[in-house]
Amino acid sequence: MRKSVRVFAPATVANVVCGYDVLGFAVNAPGDEVIMKLTGGTGITLSKITGDDGKLPLDPEKNTVSASVKHYLDYIGQPDLGIDIELHKKMPIGSGLGSSSASTVAGLFAVNTLLDNLLNTKELVPFAMKGEELACGYGHADNVAPALMGGFVLIRSYTPLDIISLPFPENLHAAIVYPEVDVPTKDARQMIRSKVLLKDAVTQWGNVAGLVSGLFMNDYELIGRSMTDILVEPVRSILIPDFYQLRELAMDAGAIGFGISGSGPSVFALTKDAETAGKITKSLQQHLKDIAINSLSFVSEVNKKGPIILD
Amino acid sequence: MRKSVRVFAPATVANVVCGYDVLGFAVNAPGDEVIMKLTGGTGITLSKITGDDGKLPLDPEKNTVSASVKHYLDYIGQPDLGIDIELHKKMPIGSGLGSSSASTVAGLFAVNTLLDNLLNTKELVPFAMKGEELACGYGHADNVAPALMGGFVLIRSYTPLDIISLPFPENLHAAIVYPEVDVPTKDARQMIRSKVLLKDAVTQWGNVAGLVSGLFMNDYELIGRSMTDILVEPVRSILIPDFYQLRELAMDAGAIGFGISGSGPSVFALTKDAETAGKITKSLQQHLKDIAINSLSFVSEVNKKGPIILD
Repeated sequence: MRKSVRVFAPATVANVVCGYDVLGFAVNAPGDEVIMKLTGGTGITLSKITGDDGKLPLDPEKNTVSASVKHYLDYIGQPDLGIDIELHKKMPIGSGLGSSSASTVAGLFAVNTLLDNLLNTKELVPFAMKGEELACGYGHADNVAPALMGGFVLIRSYTPLDIISLPFPENLHAAIVYPEVDVPTKDARQMIRSKVLLKDAVTQWGNVAGLVSGLFMNDYELIGRSMTDILVEPVRSILIPDFYQLRELAMDAGAIGFGISGSGPSVFALTKDAETAGKITKSLQQHLKDIAINSLSFVSEVNKKGPIILD
Repeated sequence: MRKSVRVFAPATVANVVCGYDVLGFAVNAPGDEVIMKLTGGTGITLSKITGDDGKLPLDPEKNTVSASVKHYLDYIGQPDLGIDIELHKKMPIGSGLGSSSASTVAGLFAVNTLLDNLLNTKELVPFAMKGEELACGYGHADNVAPALMGGFVLIRSYTPLDIISLPFPENLHAAIVYPEVDVPTKDARQMIRSKVLLKDAVTQWGNVAGLVSGLFMNDYELIGRSMTDILVEPVRSILIPDFYQLRELAMDAGAIGFGISGSGPSVFALTKDAETAGKITKSLQQHLKDIAINSLSFVSEVNKKGPIILD
């Protein structure tokens, strides 16, 4: 039995434009790392957090990683197991890329590895959702499910939880650009209206069904046509500098579809190859630079593995 | 070139529970027949309608079959072509099984056949939607698209019209029961609220995505779990006698899912074979008989062909 493990868990793009709260996919970069050790003592300690600019709590009850690991240990009947956690943030916080999710998932995958995979990956999702509840005030699964399972994931239902892995074209890539402006997830959620027109909801679920069909059919055009959001994007895009210009630049550079990642401010495009994704990030970062906004960018194929053990 | 043709077009189940206005499938029975002849004269005549109890207009401008054929002829630039139409209704009107759609589709398929398939099947959909507008006050496509194309169909978008044929399990069958009570489509639509809670819409599009995934994956259980409608069914079911008892009987008899066909009052179940479908119709019809309601029933596999030329 292992005494320690180092795990990487990936960033994720939730919603995928039309699939608010039900769709998400993982990417290979960025992501977070957790180093976890069995201490032989009692209880959870958080000995180190790096890369967070001091933003995250070291109190094990308040930190999402340790809190969700605690839920896991309670569930498996080893509530007092001695565990030390190091969290190495390798991605921006509050970026809309599932930062809390990547940390939480790395922690849960690590503890489950140390305990000889007592649970299967899908069974870890509810524990990761507890972490999201602590981080965002809302236990959504559209980041943690793809971070745990890799690839594209559909959350068909929350009660009961019903998670479906979706196929996707082999060469599907994502171009991600994070404009360094502040959009807290809680605020971004509160901007969304609680009531919508039925006819707009019909438009939306036609697109959700189209996107899912496109993924099964390896039909890039259908995937692209379906990446339309008339309910949430019009509100959330207000917080993102030059959102519609960024979309135009991405589409002009060959994106099959473009939108907000999660609650933003990161934006993403899907492409048929890495080269196009690279062109897109270059074009979008140049535009942001021209309007004096710093940005980070990431190019990755859609992640096929979920979390990985580094050593 | 043919001078006359007899065409059968199938009944259809629109919505498929969760997919209001975007999903539908066709069955092999019931359906309507149109006999169409090139007269050599000018203009459209409707010489005969049978099986409608005198309910349908013989005026070519008011009848949905002739009116949509007229749209087609105008479009292809032969507005004065001499055509005679006989319409033989072989299914109940106002049943929620796409009765007007079956007639309209049979007419359009017939005229397109007489004109050597000038348009492909998918291109006929907009003309059939014109017929639906005349019949129901609303040009929806979730009956006419599956009636024309066969199988399961997704209407991803209405503007622009974007129709996707979906796969489905080889042995998927439908059990349909039509309780002979009156539910006009226009009234059934008007009962539905125009605004819905976003959280309910999210639940619904999770199910739409789940149903589409289940069809691609040949996963009967997923198809069944996804056949839930929290937005429209609670309202429409009021007009259907003992709806929830009928659901329970259908599920007890082995249905994978159950719901209202279109705007009702017909109900349908999906099953893995014809035998189970037969059990379900028997059980539901007995229940309706016990509460003094006449009914008709149909058992069919999901239609794989769309309209067919009979002779």
